[in-house]
Amino acid sequence: MCHDQNRFHPILSAQISPPESCPVATGPALSGNDHPPPTARLLCPKRERPMKIVKLESFTTPAVSFVRVTSDTGAEGWGQMSTYNADITAQVFHRQVAPHALGTDALDFEDTIRRIYEKEHKFPGSYLRRAQTGLDTALWDLRGKLEGKPVATLLGGSPGKVRAYASSMKRDITPADEARRFQHLRDTFGFTAFKWRVGAECGRDNDEWPGRTEEVIPVVSKALGDGIDKLVDGNSCYSPARAIEVGRMLEDNGIGHFEEPCPYWHPDQTAEVRAALALDVAGGEQDCEFSSWELMFDRRAVDIAQPDIMYMGGMHRTLEVCRMAAAHGLPVTPHAANLGLVTICTMHLLRAIPNAGKYLEFSIEGPDYYPWQEGLFLGQPYAITDGHATVTDAPGWGVEINPGWLDKAQYQVSAMA
Amino acid sequence: MCHDQNRFHPILSAQISPPESCPVATGPALSGNDHPPPTARLLCPKRERPMKIVKLESFTTPAVSFVRVTSDTGAEGWGQMSTYNADITAQVFHRQVAPHALGTDALDFEDTIRRIYEKEHKFPGSYLRRAQTGLDTALWDLRGKLEGKPVATLLGGSPGKVRAYASSMKRDITPADEARRFQHLRDTFGFTAFKWRVGAECGRDNDEWPGRTEEVIPVVSKALGDGIDKLVDGNSCYSPARAIEVGRMLEDNGIGHFEEPCPYWHPDQTAEVRAALALDVAGGEQDCEFSSWELMFDRRAVDIAQPDIMYMGGMHRTLEVCRMAAAHGLPVTPHAANLGLVTICTMHLLRAIPNAGKYLEFSIEGPDYYPWQEGLFLGQPYAITDGHATVTDAPGWGVEINPGWLDKAQYQVSAMA
Repeated sequence: MCHDQNRFHPILSAQISPPESCPVATGPALSGNDHPPPTARLLCPKRERPMKIVKLESFTTPAVSFVRVTSDTGAEGWGQMSTYNADITAQVFHRQVAPHALGTDALDFEDTIRRIYEKEHKFPGSYLRRAQTGLDTALWDLRGKLEGKPVATLLGGSPGKVRAYASSMKRDITPADEARRFQHLRDTFGFTAFKWRVGAECGRDNDEWPGRTEEVIPVVSKALGDGIDKLVDGNSCYSPARAIEVGRMLEDNGIGHFEEPCPYWHPDQTAEVRAALALDVAGGEQDCEFSSWELMFDRRAVDIAQPDIMYMGGMHRTLEVCRMAAAHGLPVTPHAANLGLVTICTMHLLRAIPNAGKYLEFSIEGPDYYPWQEGLFLGQPYAITDGHATVTDAPGWGVEINPGWLDKAQYQVSAMA
Repeated sequence: MCHDQNRFHPILSAQISPPESCPVATGPALSGNDHPPPTARLLCPKRERPMKIVKLESFTTPAVSFVRVTSDTGAEGWGQMSTYNADITAQVFHRQVAPHALGTDALDFEDTIRRIYEKEHKFPGSYLRRAQTGLDTALWDLRGKLEGKPVATLLGGSPGKVRAYASSMKRDITPADEARRFQHLRDTFGFTAFKWRVGAECGRDNDEWPGRTEEVIPVVSKALGDGIDKLVDGNSCYSPARAIEVGRMLEDNGIGHFEEPCPYWHPDQTAEVRAALALDVAGGEQDCEFSSWELMFDRRAVDIAQPDIMYMGGMHRTLEVCRMAAAHGLPVTPHAANLGLVTICTMHLLRAIPNAGKYLEFSIEGPDYYPWQEGLFLGQPYAITDGHATVTDAPGWGVEINPGWLDKAQYQVSAMA
């Protein structure tokens, strides 16, 4: 069933390409941004009979939980819930997501995501959305595998390269060390954009240690040199007054992107910073309900919208945020802070949406910082060449989850009787 | 520590009475509503040394989880997390709330609630707030017991009677049966206000069964007769057009309060209904983050704000919503849909805030609908006389949780090493 009347925003329903034999309506061009117009609109897949979801399995560690969906025809897809407290999220999945999804259509599921929320409407927010992501991402993979297409193609885009920015997650690193590893990454992998951290996370104007911010801004910027896009992340550290001070330092040092300068739950504060500075103010990674996105856009808080596909509840809901951003003339540079499935999903999204930002967030942290992300996938889905990641033409997400990892994870299943 | 600069809304910090020996600043009168001005502002309790939280215990069933807090002086307080999926909420409590609360001040804890959110800022929304409620409500009880005062008094109010409205939770009841039980409650307990249900919950314009809404509105209204306040609840059922149709029926039948006419996550829709109708449109029970409250008030979506203390994350955060409502000239009629601790907390709140609405929501459902609420408390904290509930002068929340119930609940503890 298609319930387009229940869309959150009845604005242009961009860029989703229809399955074969599905009626297509060409959409008007988006205005107010520099991106190509969307091409088509998904109306409703027409099939002889619905393909139903009959089984939902999860494979869980405290940090990450993968989901396998199986249809009544035996088709399978793999997805992932958002990271951290994934064991609690998996419980939410089997109690508040799976029971409402079993028996529903495996291919036409945007409205199922909404209906699950209606059934569980007393639990708005992160946990429910993190759990829904497991369903949504597994179903996109299933459809891609059935049609032999990467998700990027299903979304109206295509496989190919995605320019990446090297994203540091560390604050307990000295400016000199940060500069050194950035230079190594630039020279070895050809990255042409980098993001590093200022202030302390939710730091109430405090720094990680006194003077670090004043030092790390010029030291890293100079070490990277010209011709490099430079980004920093405040992680909700600053009051508006201090954020504006830091922002002027950033502007003086050639940094063009200032992420989450103020506590993200105060969009008025972020808006004050955006209005005072010339560089791009970015934000939105934590926001998983449309109401806070609406408030953020209303307040003109950001120049760049940064939904996290896995915090948002999956691809369908992230596409809605992309459409909201497009309606406000804003590009989307999603949040993707680790090399679990979230960065793969983000690569597919960026290959498809008309208002894609300039680059993909690509975490540079290894096993010292993210021990749990070791050995998740077979092969090298995250290979970087000349500063670019690649969406291959493999169907679905184009990744294979490591069977050895799955064997060691905690297993739970919800299935049709 | 007091971090008033970190208040969400720097508007009047109303009605909290200070502990003895605490400096007091008298606040200006609230404007834009018919309620008395607040009297005082809590600055910071001054004590010889902080009283620290050293133990947090939970007693859990799938429906409800009580919390006991213990200080380093041996003082105790009892609170509750919000109902349903309380077993998952209790896990969130011990993983994401208790570790940040242990060792902090047991009496001056408003900023602790904010700091917990900062530590767990990647999990905005219901589960974290439901869990925080266990901490907040236990600490209010502890302080009340230490000072020998009911929480209502700590909040600047006083013990005494609270007019209640009899609130039906049922939709699968015929109009005739609903009318009959309302008449019985009116004649037996003296209730002077009643709320019943129209449409289907999150019903997309569907009714519980065809024609029920058109029948239940006049049948129940006529059975109650004159001199009774009449309220109905749509529970996110309607599109604006249908909500306005139903609203006209309500107005024609003397109903003055239309709750959650449209999906609560679409404040624009609710605002359209409010603008079209003369009766009071009410809402907000599901909203637990200030961003969605801000959007709701911005959109002028409601005439009456209805925070649920236990969904919101406790009393401190609910007081903030009450202040936001007051700044918009709106009264507060909180949501309190069962006879767990939430209705006790709401009674104390209504005895204290300057913009209290006309009545307390008081569930009329018994063990057929709420089997889990049987035997939670000793005595009769929910006795109704002449249509009123009573906040006694017993310290804290003034209730005693049934030791027999606690004995059978699942026990978990977080404690200082």
